[in-house]
Amino acid sequence: MEERTEIATLGEFGLIDHLTRNFEIQNASTILGVGDDAAVLDHFGKQIVVTTDLLVEGIHFDLMYTPLKHLGYKAVMVNLSDVYAMNASPTQITMSIAISNRFSLEALNEFYEGVYLACEKHGVDLVGGDTSSSNKGFIISVTAIGEVVPEKLVKRSTAQKGDLICVSGDLGGAFLGLTLMEREKKIYLENPQLQPDLENEAYIVGRLLKPEARKEIIAFFDENNILPTSMMDVSDGISSEVLHLCRQSNLGCVIYEDKIPVADDSRKAAFKFGLDPTVCALNGGEDYELIFTLKQEDHDKITLNEEISVIGYMTGIEEGCKLYTKGGNRFDITAQGWNAFAKQG
Amino acid sequence: MEERTEIATLGEFGLIDHLTRNFEIQNASTILGVGDDAAVLDHFGKQIVVTTDLLVEGIHFDLMYTPLKHLGYKAVMVNLSDVYAMNASPTQITMSIAISNRFSLEALNEFYEGVYLACEKHGVDLVGGDTSSSNKGFIISVTAIGEVVPEKLVKRSTAQKGDLICVSGDLGGAFLGLTLMEREKKIYLENPQLQPDLENEAYIVGRLLKPEARKEIIAFFDENNILPTSMMDVSDGISSEVLHLCRQSNLGCVIYEDKIPVADDSRKAAFKFGLDPTVCALNGGEDYELIFTLKQEDHDKITLNEEISVIGYMTGIEEGCKLYTKGGNRFDITAQGWNAFAKQG
Repeated sequence: MEERTEIATLGEFGLIDHLTRNFEIQNASTILGVGDDAAVLDHFGKQIVVTTDLLVEGIHFDLMYTPLKHLGYKAVMVNLSDVYAMNASPTQITMSIAISNRFSLEALNEFYEGVYLACEKHGVDLVGGDTSSSNKGFIISVTAIGEVVPEKLVKRSTAQKGDLICVSGDLGGAFLGLTLMEREKKIYLENPQLQPDLENEAYIVGRLLKPEARKEIIAFFDENNILPTSMMDVSDGISSEVLHLCRQSNLGCVIYEDKIPVADDSRKAAFKFGLDPTVCALNGGEDYELIFTLKQEDHDKITLNEEISVIGYMTGIEEGCKLYTKGGNRFDITAQGWNAFAKQG
Repeated sequence: MEERTEIATLGEFGLIDHLTRNFEIQNASTILGVGDDAAVLDHFGKQIVVTTDLLVEGIHFDLMYTPLKHLGYKAVMVNLSDVYAMNASPTQITMSIAISNRFSLEALNEFYEGVYLACEKHGVDLVGGDTSSSNKGFIISVTAIGEVVPEKLVKRSTAQKGDLICVSGDLGGAFLGLTLMEREKKIYLENPQLQPDLENEAYIVGRLLKPEARKEIIAFFDENNILPTSMMDVSDGISSEVLHLCRQSNLGCVIYEDKIPVADDSRKAAFKFGLDPTVCALNGGEDYELIFTLKQEDHDKITLNEEISVIGYMTGIEEGCKLYTKGGNRFDITAQGWNAFAKQG
């Protein structure tokens, strides 16, 4: 009988590892392949970063509560976020879409309005793409290209023991926005007469529907002569991301629960939904903030920036990856989604 | 009432024009945006070309008769073909896929075997990508990157009046392979006991399932100091492609039916299916050959290459785009698929 291994047994990162492990680099211009936020190519002295994302309706977004303009904007932002996560500046994108005939030209115009707005805001050119049909649903593929001088490129694998772990902005908001939207969708489907109750929830809804790639953090690094020792963007929640930094840098870490930045509006929403704000911040995802490590002696350079929080530090690999809670407990950080994590608490 | 324009009223190219017409280039490094086989970026002196394709199961391929290894191979090839069409050399690709749980890890391994084989053959590195779920079907997004010295870049818009129109290889085979496979699929669905009859059809089946991007044609240009005046790859059939070259170069053309290269095996298959081989060659698509224009004085440089056929020449825009048939008739070249075209004959 033919062998059949379910893909779910590997997980996304296991799968990528599995599929790419035997592939040897052939071009001298390929500096960094699979395994970071973006690939790095050296074309004639300066380095080029390339990153790509595929977004599928029903998996990555729900058009029931995602306006098309926001979708176009977000599809660009999530890719620019990966470019900034290499400490690089985005310069071009390509955008391919496949759509079923349920979408009109007016709908597409709306989507592209969001695309163009995102491009304009970040000084990026849309240089190519492809438009085709799909039998069902909306499929979006974006590739972003950026540039960086080789000395400034920041990878995931280069953190050092003792480095501070920092994050930009605040966390958990996008997940709480998603929770709200899913709740309102359910209510609407049960009773279409009821209008959605989004009052006072503008912050978390905005975090979900209109994420902003952190261009100004990269600019701040540049202006203040700061070079993170490692960095990535926060798309799957910081517990997942910090495990990536540790694994790829061959280190452990300590994260302090009370240092994790959560906005007041997110905290209020979490309590309303009966969720732990820390768990939302750790495992929520889609915040598109930056998580990075910094030499301790650079600490003074960031203290005046209110957008940056120090949440912990890197340790030796033998010490594992630990969360110190407000109550004085220590837990292993896992990346299995907040349900699994909540069970440990 | 809300306005609703059906996308079908614009067609793919009309749609891309519509969506991108108001977008101004912001980066000095963007040399060429939407509208050619690939975008061109000038990063520090040498030029980089970028091209992307989105392939959707049920629209672009049918897994009933496309082995996964061939699919992986072809997904790469169609992108490399766009890079060669700029007279550039491919260096890297990214590959993103979304798959439903009906695919096992073994199935994915097969797909990636084809991807790696294509990369190896063309000296290209797989540098990134993304793997995610889909609710239904297999979705593939490939971005290919290549490089070229600025003096050698060949666009679509730079043909001159009097230039020769040339194509590589032979045409119509992939369309005939598709016709065969669709016929066998129908027979199989009606009576699953019947085995497919692909005997003697290896050539056209190969043209469909295992296209080869024309690396050696680009190498031949380089070795023989040939610089086409314009070029693109043949993915939609040469009547569509030649209209692109004419429109973008602001010219007309004459194509001679009896000069269009069709392989003997394709011709036989066409007669068997009751199709006109010329119509298959003109409007078939998926051949992934190169169509290019050449200064007349360069004619001697290509005569010894049996892989290159001269099929016509560029004229002034006022002369339109004409096909001269074997029977001495003259028709306007249209790109509405072979059915529409056949009606004119």
